[in-house]
Amino acid sequence: MKRIGVLTSGGDSPGMNAAVRAVVRKALYEGMEVYGINYGFAGLVAGDIRKLTRRDVGDIIQRGGTFLYSARYPQFATEEGQLKGIEQLNRFGIEGLVVVGGDGSYRGAYALTKRGYPCIGLPGTIDNDIPGTDYTIGFDTAINTVLDALDRIRDTATSHVRTFVIEVMGRDAGDIALWAGVASGAEQIIIPEKGFDITGVADNIREGREKGKKHTIIVLAEGVMDGKEFAEKLDAIDNFHVRVTVLGHVQRGGSPTARDRVLASQFGAGAVEYLKADKGGLCLGLRNEKIVAHDIVDTLDNMKHKPNLDLYKLNKEISS
Amino acid sequence: MKRIGVLTSGGDSPGMNAAVRAVVRKALYEGMEVYGINYGFAGLVAGDIRKLTRRDVGDIIQRGGTFLYSARYPQFATEEGQLKGIEQLNRFGIEGLVVVGGDGSYRGAYALTKRGYPCIGLPGTIDNDIPGTDYTIGFDTAINTVLDALDRIRDTATSHVRTFVIEVMGRDAGDIALWAGVASGAEQIIIPEKGFDITGVADNIREGREKGKKHTIIVLAEGVMDGKEFAEKLDAIDNFHVRVTVLGHVQRGGSPTARDRVLASQFGAGAVEYLKADKGGLCLGLRNEKIVAHDIVDTLDNMKHKPNLDLYKLNKEISS
Amino acid sequence: MKRIGVLTSGGDSPGMNAAVRAVVRKALYEGMEVYGINYGFAGLVAGDIRKLTRRDVGDIIQRGGTFLYSARYPQFATEEGQLKGIEQLNRFGIEGLVVVGGDGSYRGAYALTKRGYPCIGLPGTIDNDIPGTDYTIGFDTAINTVLDALDRIRDTATSHVRTFVIEVMGRDAGDIALWAGVASGAEQIIIPEKGFDITGVADNIREGREKGKKHTIIVLAEGVMDGKEFAEKLDAIDNFHVRVTVLGHVQRGGSPTARDRVLASQFGAGAVEYLKADKGGLCLGLRNEKIVAHDIVDTLDNMKHKPNLDLYKLNKEISS
Amino acid sequence: MKRIGVLTSGGDSPGMNAAVRAVVRKALYEGMEVYGINYGFAGLVAGDIRKLTRRDVGDIIQRGGTFLYSARYPQFATEEGQLKGIEQLNRFGIEGLVVVGGDGSYRGAYALTKRGYPCIGLPGTIDNDIPGTDYTIGFDTAINTVLDALDRIRDTATSHVRTFVIEVMGRDAGDIALWAGVASGAEQIIIPEKGFDITGVADNIREGREKGKKHTIIVLAEGVMDGKEFAEKLDAIDNFHVRVTVLGHVQRGGSPTARDRVLASQFGAGAVEYLKADKGGLCLGLRNEKIVAHDIVDTLDNMKHKPNLDLYKLNKEISS
Repeated sequence: MKRIGVLTSGGDSPGMNAAVRAVVRKALYEGMEVYGINYGFAGLVAGDIRKLTRRDVGDIIQRGGTFLYSARYPQFATEEGQLKGIEQLNRFGIEGLVVVGGDGSYRGAYALTKRGYPCIGLPGTIDNDIPGTDYTIGFDTAINTVLDALDRIRDTATSHVRTFVIEVMGRDAGDIALWAGVASGAEQIIIPEKGFDITGVADNIREGREKGKKHTIIVLAEGVMDGKEFAEKLDAIDNFHVRVTVLGHVQRGGSPTARDRVLASQFGAGAVEYLKADKGGLCLGLRNEKIVAHDIVDTLDNMKHKPNLDLYKLNKEISS
Repeated sequence: MKRIGVLTSGGDSPGMNAAVRAVVRKALYEGMEVYGINYGFAGLVAGDIRKLTRRDVGDIIQRGGTFLYSARYPQFATEEGQLKGIEQLNRFGIEGLVVVGGDGSYRGAYALTKRGYPCIGLPGTIDNDIPGTDYTIGFDTAINTVLDALDRIRDTATSHVRTFVIEVMGRDAGDIALWAGVASGAEQIIIPEKGFDITGVADNIREGREKGKKHTIIVLAEGVMDGKEFAEKLDAIDNFHVRVTVLGHVQRGGSPTARDRVLASQFGAGAVEYLKADKGGLCLGLRNEKIVAHDIVDTLDNMKHKPNLDLYKLNKEISS
Repeated sequence: MKRIGVLTSGGDSPGMNAAVRAVVRKALYEGMEVYGINYGFAGLVAGDIRKLTRRDVGDIIQRGGTFLYSARYPQFATEEGQLKGIEQLNRFGIEGLVVVGGDGSYRGAYALTKRGYPCIGLPGTIDNDIPGTDYTIGFDTAINTVLDALDRIRDTATSHVRTFVIEVMGRDAGDIALWAGVASGAEQIIIPEKGFDITGVADNIREGREKGKKHTIIVLAEGVMDGKEFAEKLDAIDNFHVRVTVLGHVQRGGSPTARDRVLASQFGAGAVEYLKADKGGLCLGLRNEKIVAHDIVDTLDNMKHKPNLDLYKLNKEISS
Repeated sequence: MKRIGVLTSGGDSPGMNAAVRAVVRKALYEGMEVYGINYGFAGLVAGDIRKLTRRDVGDIIQRGGTFLYSARYPQFATEEGQLKGIEQLNRFGIEGLVVVGGDGSYRGAYALTKRGYPCIGLPGTIDNDIPGTDYTIGFDTAINTVLDALDRIRDTATSHVRTFVIEVMGRDAGDIALWAGVASGAEQIIIPEKGFDITGVADNIREGREKGKKHTIIVLAEGVMDGKEFAEKLDAIDNFHVRVTVLGHVQRGGSPTARDRVLASQFGAGAVEYLKADKGGLCLGLRNEKIVAHDIVDTLDNMKHKPNLDLYKLNKEISS
């Protein structure tokens, strides 16, 4: 393969720029050409495509977001959408693609591969909820962003002896809540993978107060329920005057951490190696500290992401 | 005066620890003794008081919150509350107080002064809404915390071409919104000191899109209205799909900035000089880069805090 | 004036991008055109000049350094250099300039003004050593960067009971050392504006140890002497095993703080107002929280920058 | 085992407090008592020991350094030192120890185990150079601290078109240089595990300039040579005007990252489980994302730490 494209799709995450930079630099190193596609599959269909040089990816490794922009584009699931995309690939002479994103992006990558345009999927999301990898691009940055917020909230919680519920992102996965919760020493972590019993949560707050704890911090994964709803349930049991903070979109941004930049660089360079060998239909992952490749369909259909529930047990033992 | 006390009252703010450290160190330097009172006026009435040594304030200058804890205690407005407080002052031989906090704290400081216990008020709040000073302890840290959040949100806003409303603190004052808004290059800043016209806000978003802007960021002071309500008003005009983030309590915490630590240190040391000279009923402020003292009653009754509205005009000219 | 230029000169500082952005946006707002000149006066002479649009300055307010690049170019002090520069100004139809930088930049700005091309100088340096202003663009960011480093060093100093000398920037001025020293609670601050007595420094370390202090942190302004040399002098007196850290160029970079971005924006917009009125030969400053303009020659010849030496006294009283 | 001790030894690293907190909390959870030993083995011998409660480890998870202080104490390699230590263990009824530190600490832990006092070693150092684990406590924080410094230096390097050599820690290991180098997009990484050819380094700088690169950043591991010496070698070849920054002790401090806090918590709790089962002579590690235990002697004598040299190759391909 001599000419490849790269796009970012779905929700953006810190490290996507580092991944694109690695794709471009590695491809140039291997004597290939690279085209950047703006706005994900939407831009592919629209032909929003340009050649990328070494300089275009200079000074971007440290930036959050994605300079190729991103978009959700469900229409790419249709044959019509895919054929329009292929028209553009042909127009620019692009033979294969690196696609950075989540489940939907993987489906698009697989569809194009089946139609003769090998694609490699790279897991890019802060939520860490993509099967086939221990960590996704952006997760490490997100948990440190959340941790910073939790540290700040603890300052004020300690000063005033209060109970806080902090709702964090993660879609259906509890990974962000688990890692940031353990790291911040949160009293309780509520995740979708484990049920919760609101009276148990309330009892735990009261026990903490009896032990002389100055504050109770409860980290709630958005996949469980809304932070405000959770706080109302708690206040209905006892007069806790629970404060709620919904961290929101700050969790998606920020300069990527060292880990996220290194991981993204490894993924980006790895993807080019597969395309160079004309291989597609694969998604890359980090497994036990090694970069691995899986079949996309097998990954989406048969693998399941599981958070590290040992952390859940650990927190119960050392933070309550 | 030979023995003084120090307390923090009302909402906590970054730099309060630096102020207390300066009070203690300066008093020891002047040959005085210092007692720390926990939980503000509530702790004074309850006698939650202890002698502070040089070591007690070591390694705290960099910490957010207040290690003396804080509390709101409206009962101190009553004669009964004040007399109970004085009982404790007598019990510990405390002759005067440094009180770090906001309006309510100043009232308490004035009441004790009138009753023969000279007190000095120091402006401690992130909201910058205390008369008699250009800046309060904690404001500089808060605007940088908000700025960091706005920078992160811009990453994702740019990647997706979106409109964001970010609700920031400030009570009835627009200072946090103004400073953080200008510093982040926010497209619009909505503050209570200026009205707003929702159709004008909407027009501005549309104009920005026509100019090719990748995102619109609107910083909304909490004193205007709730972020969610504001977004609903906007979406009622046009289909903007506005995203809302309410930054919440993260704004109160964090390690204080250089400015806040320096200002708090100046205030703390300054307060001790007045008490040493047996002067009370004063509140300190920073005016034109100088530490000044005002009469508390005069400050609360006749001075009015005004944000720097030049920044409002500036932002209209360079950010829209 | 209808067409202006903007350049950054001398050492770069965080906030220069925010200043250039404000120049561009304000000029467009006023119906003027703006040209960006790369590499300071060197680029002016070489004609490395391009028109700047609203988009060119989008998404740069948060970036350290200067996207117009900077350079030192002593040749601009000669008539030959100035005439070559004017040739380029004429070629592009540029009628006046905004120059962000230090003393040398001001001299260049003045020379061009005298030759009929009005220029406004803006103080851009981390060192805060430019007369006519309380604060320069970049100073606030630099003291917070130094403060972050000092906080980190204290962690390890405390853990091991050690003495550290940290050399900080500032050229001949002690401002960075003073502010970061007070803010970090450094035991001693050594600046060029005050002499020092090495045996006094040594005595102070020993006194601190006797009082049970876990560490001694000495902040040394580079204008005094080299950190290594200073440490050797100390170790010659007693076996202190002093550790030295020279912070170096990290102090020049980083995303600007809220204050630096706001100040830079005010300066940039202010400069355009003067050029619009065809006024030149002025440099702007912040005096008592107000933006003011001074004659450049008067500023360089008759004003003298003085650090706030009250901070020096304050630190002696509360940190030793 | 019913009563255990915990100490930190050797160079401090961010996350040591999180490890001690986990030891204390987990031990209390298991119904054991915990004693904190100040200043490592030196404090053990001196009997600087106190009982730790839940509160003693509250609000420390986020702090750099070690609140138990640390020290190097080579005398503990002698029989005399060990017997004195055991005397103190007997005096306080301590049956086993958790020792956080490096090689020397492991030797001490092994010696005490052989004498009947089971000890568990936990790898605590920023250098990542301890065998038996993929990552040590503090490494992740250190690479992010270095990365922040490199990002700042790039700001100014880009603004001025310069060549920088940044010397980073790591003792004989290149891990910090490798990770921070890849993450920052450094042009060259020089580590002890790979030789270097100074003319090759110089050629690479010149090639970069020819390609239009605005800066060259070279990350140099301290295990290779002194930064100043390296720069002089470079400048002897060509007139590069290389700037050197030696990051120094800032690398050891700072609030630990999410990873370091989670890893330290896992290690701390894991150590208690082994002691509870009366097992000693082990050191814990993270291998392929799992907490594992190795025999200390086997680890020190037969295992060898190796950095991930794939990163070295990766950087050559994507950053030059």
